[in-house]
Amino acid sequence: MKKEKVSSAVIRRLPRYYRHLSDLRLAGVERISSSALGRSMGLTASQIRQDLSCFGEFGQQGYGYNVNRLSEEIAGILGMNRGHTAIVLGVGNLGRALLENFPFERSGFTLAAAFDIDPAIAGRELCGVPVYHADRLEQYLAGHPTGIGVLTVPRSAANVTAARLARGGVKGIWNFTNIELNIAGLGTVVEDVHFADSLLSLSYMITEAL
Amino acid sequence: MKKEKVSSAVIRRLPRYYRHLSDLRLAGVERISSSALGRSMGLTASQIRQDLSCFGEFGQQGYGYNVNRLSEEIAGILGMNRGHTAIVLGVGNLGRALLENFPFERSGFTLAAAFDIDPAIAGRELCGVPVYHADRLEQYLAGHPTGIGVLTVPRSAANVTAARLARGGVKGIWNFTNIELNIAGLGTVVEDVHFADSLLSLSYMITEAL
Repeated sequence: MKKEKVSSAVIRRLPRYYRHLSDLRLAGVERISSSALGRSMGLTASQIRQDLSCFGEFGQQGYGYNVNRLSEEIAGILGMNRGHTAIVLGVGNLGRALLENFPFERSGFTLAAAFDIDPAIAGRELCGVPVYHADRLEQYLAGHPTGIGVLTVPRSAANVTAARLARGGVKGIWNFTNIELNIAGLGTVVEDVHFADSLLSLSYMITEAL
Repeated sequence: MKKEKVSSAVIRRLPRYYRHLSDLRLAGVERISSSALGRSMGLTASQIRQDLSCFGEFGQQGYGYNVNRLSEEIAGILGMNRGHTAIVLGVGNLGRALLENFPFERSGFTLAAAFDIDPAIAGRELCGVPVYHADRLEQYLAGHPTGIGVLTVPRSAANVTAARLARGGVKGIWNFTNIELNIAGLGTVVEDVHFADSLLSLSYMITEAL
């Protein structure tokens, strides 16, 4: 299939499709109609068909989608089979929570290292991941081309650390700092995690329910 | 303005509008055109105008939107002025990270209490928030009507804790457990935080850049 066919709006929805298809696989479902998939995702069947029109060969009239093949196709488009590597910057509460609990490998990432300025943490291992002193970041990146940096440093260190990652050739930054990073022109893409957007949606829902 | 006019798709986007308008306020911007707001959000001017058509009185031809008033209107719709309360369930790494760093008050929530099963934590205060033993949850909820429960317990405790919150009258659950909660019929809404969706979008972006 050709990537050019997939619009950016669909790309933003692909992770959700992948998640729902994975749940279906786990439940032993082999094929699913667009209307059933739509129901489970809160979308209409026509939205589903439109979004997945570029996956035409997996969706057949009267058959629906082959869950395994559609799921693998989406995984491929999302780059889950590329052997991307990730490093964690800042092993505070949030960095540690991600290290200990987030299944990076399920998204196709290998968690290769973590960095912190605290000498009491640096030099140790956490969940099988080596933790280095932040001073060694440039040296590490020179020897280990890295896909993404997971940015969980304090806000005050956010931009400085992001710039060091970008200059070190890191392709993307997963930004948990709630700071708008200012690293334009360095060729590194940024994905911001906005907890507050999610909380405000919930706020709306409970307000409506009152 | 009438809430009936706002579609659910727009509701999902309102937090992003609110965030961008807040940034503009901080930067001292008093009014903005739909095209300028669109550029800063990666949307077209016509999308912006369509989304905010229900806020017509704040958008005028040749004037644009009054940043303060539009921002306050959206805050009102999102329920940010309702004095909602939040409690945190599970003071592990992630719960502690949210307690210590997440600005609940900026989303209109008061963080009233936290709960954990660890007797070494229960009875203490963290960042001014009292931490109680999880056994006392029902007793607490009976005396303190609560807007949302922030679910940061281990996966194994996710559904049990969610059901206790729902039966205790908690209106919404902010679910960080990566588990599909099974509390249908109890009248409590759930907002799932899916870190992996965000990581997969980033994976796509760095794969495209290769």
